[in-house]
Amino acid sequence: MPLLVVGSVALDCVETPTASRDDVLGGSAVFFSYAASFFTPVKMIGTVGEDWPSVHTRFLEERSIDTSGIEMIPGGKTFRWRGRYLPNMNDRETLEVHLNVFGEFKPKLGPAHRDSKFVFLGNASPVTQLSVLDQVPGAQLTVADTMDLWINIQRDELEELLRRVDGLVLNDAEAKLLAEDENLVRAGQAVRKMGPKFVVIKKGEHGAMFFSEHEMYVMPAYPTPQVLDPTGAGDSFAGGMMGHLASLGRFDPQALKEALAYGVITASFTVEDFSLDRLSAIGRHDLDRRLGEYRQMLMF
Amino acid sequence: MPLLVVGSVALDCVETPTASRDDVLGGSAVFFSYAASFFTPVKMIGTVGEDWPSVHTRFLEERSIDTSGIEMIPGGKTFRWRGRYLPNMNDRETLEVHLNVFGEFKPKLGPAHRDSKFVFLGNASPVTQLSVLDQVPGAQLTVADTMDLWINIQRDELEELLRRVDGLVLNDAEAKLLAEDENLVRAGQAVRKMGPKFVVIKKGEHGAMFFSEHEMYVMPAYPTPQVLDPTGAGDSFAGGMMGHLASLGRFDPQALKEALAYGVITASFTVEDFSLDRLSAIGRHDLDRRLGEYRQMLMF
Repeated sequence: MPLLVVGSVALDCVETPTASRDDVLGGSAVFFSYAASFFTPVKMIGTVGEDWPSVHTRFLEERSIDTSGIEMIPGGKTFRWRGRYLPNMNDRETLEVHLNVFGEFKPKLGPAHRDSKFVFLGNASPVTQLSVLDQVPGAQLTVADTMDLWINIQRDELEELLRRVDGLVLNDAEAKLLAEDENLVRAGQAVRKMGPKFVVIKKGEHGAMFFSEHEMYVMPAYPTPQVLDPTGAGDSFAGGMMGHLASLGRFDPQALKEALAYGVITASFTVEDFSLDRLSAIGRHDLDRRLGEYRQMLMF
Repeated sequence: MPLLVVGSVALDCVETPTASRDDVLGGSAVFFSYAASFFTPVKMIGTVGEDWPSVHTRFLEERSIDTSGIEMIPGGKTFRWRGRYLPNMNDRETLEVHLNVFGEFKPKLGPAHRDSKFVFLGNASPVTQLSVLDQVPGAQLTVADTMDLWINIQRDELEELLRRVDGLVLNDAEAKLLAEDENLVRAGQAVRKMGPKFVVIKKGEHGAMFFSEHEMYVMPAYPTPQVLDPTGAGDSFAGGMMGHLASLGRFDPQALKEALAYGVITASFTVEDFSLDRLSAIGRHDLDRRLGEYRQMLMF
């Protein structure tokens, strides 16, 4: 089943202790779409400026990614982010953010997008995310991401969003902030009680946790000796997860657990190189082989 | 099979954001022994001062713990530690350390201890740990713990120890320091190449990683909503792990993996209350029930 994602499309400058890259393809919708495209056709909604290299659009279209929902704003500039990773490769500092056209992003879905059944709302203001929800009345599964900024400055709107989506994906620091609880288990349960049927907490190099009314579990990250650039790991995780669910067309507890595992594995490849360099060098069989190793690893 | 542990016996003062306790039973050998006693008979080697409350000895002897190797030093004082946990309950600061009699600890094993087959060298100087190794020539499995202090000030002695023990248990920061590598996968592999057949990296609330020549895996911590006092979690982990191995009398890959899982589960109970309050309130069936939940949690 096709999967709709609405989110950022960006050009990233990334500095790590050992290497750096300028103006590489990035953004939540991009990492998400590419990761999900191993599993299912994807439709992207986003916005870019006149500086957007068309080679990136072709790169995405070579996968099963429909980029017709990427709007180019004449005279505008593409969202840019510059970040630097600390030596532990898990923490980072943002050096520059230029929202550019993404600051005025008002997604308008055409008929080809409005009947989507599986929808992911990448990190954007809850007001924007709510406006997308209004445009997909027939969606079967809606999952949103969020970030500390919105928890701090648009909490009411975020709480309204939480009452309307099926699932929420957020990182550990954001979960603690939103729940005002330093214990992640209690924080996850508290966020779930704010509305979504399930909550997934991303813990970076430490994996992910899942919370629903009847279930709670944790999955470690797949341990890789090669971490070159963690940018996009969280979005790739969400893309692998949602891609698997959309490919199955269901989201029962077993499907969700497998989906989390696929998310973990997809992200484990993303971090092995800059931008989408690693994901674009592997095939579905690589994901499945590593998933098998991961399954074995957790069996005792 | 009986299990020998050599390590610290302490009186702890613990401060957490919500509560604190003074002069409670602590020390690496104590947490280790109590945790291991769910699985197998334990023999403790340690040292205490005249201030040692005999009620603590009785408390340990009510389990299958042989305390005849705890030497009381006349006129001496017991090792004392005071620490404060940060709100995240994973990081802590040491406020006071008084080594007292533990500073002069020179373990001398009697005949009843020298023929031990399963031996755990709790955190102490590598010189002390090596002297214990010399006294257990017939040991089948020797595993040591260590800490940043020894990596920094007795590195040569520690490296000699690593060439002589079968296994090493250490935490994530220590593994990175010892291997001089910020990537935990590479760090674990590098430490293993220093000598031990296997290395276990403890990651606190994020679980543990295992490294041998042919295997590498990660196990998440069991997620508990109630973390009152993490003191002793690492030693309880090691105690559960070694206790299970000693009870089986073997340490093949499958036994080691189950042992790590038992370590994770034992530690998950320890943190739910101060000192040994939680471990002393549960039975083996509680460990096994939670182990079953944990196994299920990791299956997809």
